[in-house]
Amino acid sequence: MEEIMIYVPAILAIIGLIFMGIKRSWVLKQDAGDGKMKEISDHIYEGALAFLNAEYKLLAIFVVIVSVLLAIVSFVVPTTHWLIVIAFIFGAVFSAYAGNIGMKIATKTNVRTTQAARTSLPNALKISFGGGTVMGLGVAGLAVLGLTTFFIFFFHFFMGGVWTNNADMTIVLETLAGFSLGAESIALFARVGGGIYTKAADVGADLVGKVEAGIPEDDPRNPATIADNVGDNVGDVAGMGADLFGSYVATVLAAMVLGNYVIKDMGGMVDDKFGGIGPILLPMAIAGVGIIISIIGTLLVKISSNDAKESQVMGALNKGNITSIVLVAVACYGLCMWMLPEEMEMQFFGVLVPTTITSLEVFFATLVGLVVGAVISAVTEYYTGLGKKPILKIVQQSSTGAGTNIIAGLATGMISTFPSVLLFAAAIWASYAFAGFYGVALAASAMMATTAMQLAIDAFGPISDNAGGIAEMSEQEPIVRERTDILDSVGNTTAATGKGFAIASAALTSLALFAAYVTFTGIDGINIFKAPVLAMLFVGGMVPVVFSALAMNAVGKAAMEMVQEVRRQFREIPGIMEGTGKPEYDKCVAISTEASLKEMLLPGVLTIGFPLVIAFAPMAFGMDSLLIAEMLGGYMAGVTVSGVLWAIFQNNAGGAWDNAKKSFEAGVMINGEMTYKGSEAHKAAVTGDTVGDPFKDTSGPSMNILIKLTCLIGLVIAPILGGHTESELPIQEETAFIESAGKNLIKKEMKVDMYTTDGITHAEVEIETTKNGKSNSKTYDFEGTEAEVKTKVEALR
Amino acid sequence: MEEIMIYVPAILAIIGLIFMGIKRSWVLKQDAGDGKMKEISDHIYEGALAFLNAEYKLLAIFVVIVSVLLAIVSFVVPTTHWLIVIAFIFGAVFSAYAGNIGMKIATKTNVRTTQAARTSLPNALKISFGGGTVMGLGVAGLAVLGLTTFFIFFFHFFMGGVWTNNADMTIVLETLAGFSLGAESIALFARVGGGIYTKAADVGADLVGKVEAGIPEDDPRNPATIADNVGDNVGDVAGMGADLFGSYVATVLAAMVLGNYVIKDMGGMVDDKFGGIGPILLPMAIAGVGIIISIIGTLLVKISSNDAKESQVMGALNKGNITSIVLVAVACYGLCMWMLPEEMEMQFFGVLVPTTITSLEVFFATLVGLVVGAVISAVTEYYTGLGKKPILKIVQQSSTGAGTNIIAGLATGMISTFPSVLLFAAAIWASYAFAGFYGVALAASAMMATTAMQLAIDAFGPISDNAGGIAEMSEQEPIVRERTDILDSVGNTTAATGKGFAIASAALTSLALFAAYVTFTGIDGINIFKAPVLAMLFVGGMVPVVFSALAMNAVGKAAMEMVQEVRRQFREIPGIMEGTGKPEYDKCVAISTEASLKEMLLPGVLTIGFPLVIAFAPMAFGMDSLLIAEMLGGYMAGVTVSGVLWAIFQNNAGGAWDNAKKSFEAGVMINGEMTYKGSEAHKAAVTGDTVGDPFKDTSGPSMNILIKLTCLIGLVIAPILGGHTESELPIQEETAFIESAGKNLIKKEMKVDMYTTDGITHAEVEIETTKNGKSNSKTYDFEGTEAEVKTKVEALR
Repeated sequence: MEEIMIYVPAILAIIGLIFMGIKRSWVLKQDAGDGKMKEISDHIYEGALAFLNAEYKLLAIFVVIVSVLLAIVSFVVPTTHWLIVIAFIFGAVFSAYAGNIGMKIATKTNVRTTQAARTSLPNALKISFGGGTVMGLGVAGLAVLGLTTFFIFFFHFFMGGVWTNNADMTIVLETLAGFSLGAESIALFARVGGGIYTKAADVGADLVGKVEAGIPEDDPRNPATIADNVGDNVGDVAGMGADLFGSYVATVLAAMVLGNYVIKDMGGMVDDKFGGIGPILLPMAIAGVGIIISIIGTLLVKISSNDAKESQVMGALNKGNITSIVLVAVACYGLCMWMLPEEMEMQFFGVLVPTTITSLEVFFATLVGLVVGAVISAVTEYYTGLGKKPILKIVQQSSTGAGTNIIAGLATGMISTFPSVLLFAAAIWASYAFAGFYGVALAASAMMATTAMQLAIDAFGPISDNAGGIAEMSEQEPIVRERTDILDSVGNTTAATGKGFAIASAALTSLALFAAYVTFTGIDGINIFKAPVLAMLFVGGMVPVVFSALAMNAVGKAAMEMVQEVRRQFREIPGIMEGTGKPEYDKCVAISTEASLKEMLLPGVLTIGFPLVIAFAPMAFGMDSLLIAEMLGGYMAGVTVSGVLWAIFQNNAGGAWDNAKKSFEAGVMINGEMTYKGSEAHKAAVTGDTVGDPFKDTSGPSMNILIKLTCLIGLVIAPILGGHTESELPIQEETAFIESAGKNLIKKEMKVDMYTTDGITHAEVEIETTKNGKSNSKTYDFEGTEAEVKTKVEALR
Repeated sequence: MEEIMIYVPAILAIIGLIFMGIKRSWVLKQDAGDGKMKEISDHIYEGALAFLNAEYKLLAIFVVIVSVLLAIVSFVVPTTHWLIVIAFIFGAVFSAYAGNIGMKIATKTNVRTTQAARTSLPNALKISFGGGTVMGLGVAGLAVLGLTTFFIFFFHFFMGGVWTNNADMTIVLETLAGFSLGAESIALFARVGGGIYTKAADVGADLVGKVEAGIPEDDPRNPATIADNVGDNVGDVAGMGADLFGSYVATVLAAMVLGNYVIKDMGGMVDDKFGGIGPILLPMAIAGVGIIISIIGTLLVKISSNDAKESQVMGALNKGNITSIVLVAVACYGLCMWMLPEEMEMQFFGVLVPTTITSLEVFFATLVGLVVGAVISAVTEYYTGLGKKPILKIVQQSSTGAGTNIIAGLATGMISTFPSVLLFAAAIWASYAFAGFYGVALAASAMMATTAMQLAIDAFGPISDNAGGIAEMSEQEPIVRERTDILDSVGNTTAATGKGFAIASAALTSLALFAAYVTFTGIDGINIFKAPVLAMLFVGGMVPVVFSALAMNAVGKAAMEMVQEVRRQFREIPGIMEGTGKPEYDKCVAISTEASLKEMLLPGVLTIGFPLVIAFAPMAFGMDSLLIAEMLGGYMAGVTVSGVLWAIFQNNAGGAWDNAKKSFEAGVMINGEMTYKGSEAHKAAVTGDTVGDPFKDTSGPSMNILIKLTCLIGLVIAPILGGHTESELPIQEETAFIESAGKNLIKKEMKVDMYTTDGITHAEVEIETTKNGKSNSKTYDFEGTEAEVKTKVEALR
């Protein structure tokens, strides 16, 4: 009976997608308002489609190139099957399709939210959050459906649907990694390209419209205003969606890989009710159940009073969110106790005797993940929230000019790494102590289980922002804008905490992938006391810094193109300022689209190129592949540590500057005087926000993609470096005679005798070196795990 | 005959100090100018003394506290001798005395340079560079003299002046580490405290004087102007001097530690002409010879034409610098070939068979260091130099406001990490490939050999800057200021390249200390695939970021106090603006002094506290000390990688903003229009410079101290964690019965039989576990280096 559990996550995902479909048609059935509103909304929708279409073209080229590369890899490397190409393509298509659903519903919901806000606030929330729910369920449903379906397929294809051995399962999971790689590649385009798009449009619209022409934000006379509104959807909806889609898939995959190693540690076989793959099914089950729980959570988000304020709207969102987190905790308890053996033997690294881990301890590890998700949001909220101490300090420092405002903002972002990193470090430690790296991966899985809910909360922000823009552009009554502003203001807070969640998910995902990488390659850990590994740790640490700089520069360049186009239109289109000439919105959309996709190439190449160079350049010089695997591991660790730091720093500094500027809207007390918009201090705060914009919307969030993609690429090329499948074969006897012209060695003869019994590998190595006619012989005996022994034997060569 | 080589470095250091004394009295004999000039110079001198005295008081307390702690450590840990306390105190005193010499001569040279500039430029250069030479030789001479004298003393005290074994030498070097720790502690005060001082005074003077009161820079009516000039000496002279003093000592020490391990790898005995300690003496010899070479280099720095421009002055400095680097290369060749065995056996990590390294290969490693020193200066010069592409870009971006100027500056600093880190990574790799970690440490030693010359070049900048200030304040003819401006302008360039040199030295020093740490603890490398180690890598990565933020905030706070004091004086002292009332310079000096020393406490506690907590907190919970040693190693690596990145980023961003602002003085072409001081673009550039000031003068340079001090603290507590001396003893037999109530284990019996023959340790471990009445027995055989075997046996417990 329990054996059908393999199909359950997919079924739950389908239920989620069905619910999404129902919600979607409900949203679309709502009143889309009158002529002017509809016209503007259509412009935004078409602009979004234009970006998606341009993106898809570039994506298609990218997917073809990577597919060919993967096909070559699968041809060369015996352990990589060509089906990885299919998985990759589907991963890309699923993620792109999820983004498509999200963008379309977001750009359809915005105008309906505006229309609803004309009657009541509860209705406006219901519709805008409904749109967010569609987005969230679309992403989560497709992610789980795709991953689980491919797993079922590969499980039957490679193993005939029954447990054979770890080696076969490793091939299943390695092939499945293609799906994850495809998903994360799309995230690169959506998150980095989207981040450049949204800021280029924003800066362009503001610089010429607000500053030069002196017209208000979202004014329909501004040619870049549609691009600006499209940007909110491209960056905050599609970008965030693709980011979490990628994290979701990668986390579950990594947990499955580590689950396979749990089975290996237990002797390659588990006697459970789930066909012996309980530890591998568990992360999928958590993901599937998480979708249903998210649906329950979204149903709780509602307000009744038309006079509700921000705090009540926030309260409604929190109620849904906290409920779903608690339910996931309950579900994790049930699933861990039900699906895992009561006691598992795990091989902790550096400990030769296996450690016994209970299913309860695995559950504790999942709790760690849930706590991290909640606490990181609170930390982010503290450092970037209106009225909190850090923001008040930045406001205070704005009074002495832009310079001190910038320093205060930078310092806030930098200091915010303190609690965040301590939290991550504690989480790594705790979840590892409970259940090894399997625990770390499951902590990430549990945290990601509420992805649908998180995305719903997150996507509702830009929808409300757009709704406000439409209200402004279509010149609605002030009450409409007031209502959408309440939603927008809450959306700004959820955007900040959502970024915290996204970083935490990226960090934990990368760690899980990192652990999976080490087990895939079969290396004996990653030892930074080897100089080449240490050197790569340095190089890895540098890449996020340079990536961020490139992303920031890209925004600058794209914004400049936008500025020139807007200036041109103001100059050349007659009557544009009087409202009689019609601005060419589509030209601005086209510029943002092209510039963003063009400018993301260099950072993209950096992300993908570095790990490939580190893996293949030394190989060309004949370096030992196990050392290369360690070097690549050092690089991955460097990227992850530095990337997490720079993500937190940039997101929180950017968020803090943004809210410091916003503080002036309601007025702030500086040195005993109320200070408002238009003051010198406010101008300084605006400068800070200009710096913060690319930080928080472009370079900061793209760190997530950088670290995950780096670790995924490592995982995909791991079999080339490690050759785990070979080491799965029982090596009966192997004798090698090597003539080496090594450093001052005239001749080195090496005889290896390696065999494995009862899971312990023994090796006897005899080395005879002949130098200057003198000959010297030594014998070494090794015993331990296969990987350990192999490393030691390799080290002798 | 060659055995007296142990005394030679000390003798060379004394020669350097004698030369310094001669140069010093020559400088002091020069004309110190007329009344007004002398008066101002005296104010600066007294202000500097006031800072030094306040610093010494705080230092005395600090030294007493640390001495007590060290005494306790030496009491508890058998391998740490109480003489480490004496070494620590002398290290602190020597470094402080070197700073004292430098500050005094710098504040005496400035007015003499002004006076000389009244007659000719060549004379002004001769005097200002003469002052720098005194500073450089003082630091280098005292560093080498102190270190070598203590080595000779400990060598006789612990070993009777003859080679006994590696264990004894390890005790000598561990005790010597106290000297290094003392020196680096002073650097913390001088560099971080000095950095806060100089910027607080600078910002305070500018904000009230230039901006509010509208009087020019260095105007004698400004009460903070003396503090500002003192700050140049405190930060750029004493701070830089203490930084390089610390690097110099630590580098040589680390190379000596690794030299001891070279001897160990060769069987614990080398048959050479230097009493069997050639590899340990070599780094000292290089340092000693470097002093003489630096003297030769300084003698080449002169110009003859009174109409010389910046390029000729720069050329003179370059001539001296390049000559000394080439001479060091030649000296390294001679010393390596002479002092090292022609062939050495080195135990490369992860390679069981020793690798044969020739003395020529060691020489190649030293060349790597010299190349790094030269190239990093060029890289720094490219990213921060006037007229170079990055600066022109920042200038261009200033035209669209402060926001874009800031983004461009940040991006420049961030991108500059790319070549710098690749250079470091290549250097680590190459020097390690040539001669292991001994090679890495010797690369650092060779680079540091020209410290005296580097410091002379470096200190000449602030002296000239001060000379210009005195010319301004004493209202000299314009020609005087023009001449000092030429020197000052060159000084700005050398300040930037000097910072590059300081980072490179800190980075290589930390790596060498890191390597020495691993060998001291005897751990089996640092494996970041262990979750606690990985967690500490994260924590380590975070510390430099938070440290930087604290330093920046400290500047802000200290500057605010200064602003209020200056405002008070302008308000309360009658006739101050008319030049009839006398400003209270000393009050401003006192505020800067107190604030800087108070504000550096928190970052100082962070630096010293974190490694101690990581080492001792888990120990209190009974964690295995070898795992703690790995965790601390992970922390050190995190701090080093992140610290190097943030040092480069902050120094270069700050330098770039500074020169972007300076570009406007001569006028720059923006969008086809010449733009000058006072334009909107210039104002934007000034804002950038405000942000850059604490970056380049406070938080950036203090990264050097953070990473070195972290690694030194690790080195000093290494014996507590690793217990290397125990492992030096031949363990004949050891049997242990352990009753453990570990996870689900009822009883675990362990029998260990360990013995060492021919340098290879063998262990046989039998483990019997009894659980639920069932008993299970396993036997393990290990062979390898002692550390490896011990780790494995430990892992079984």
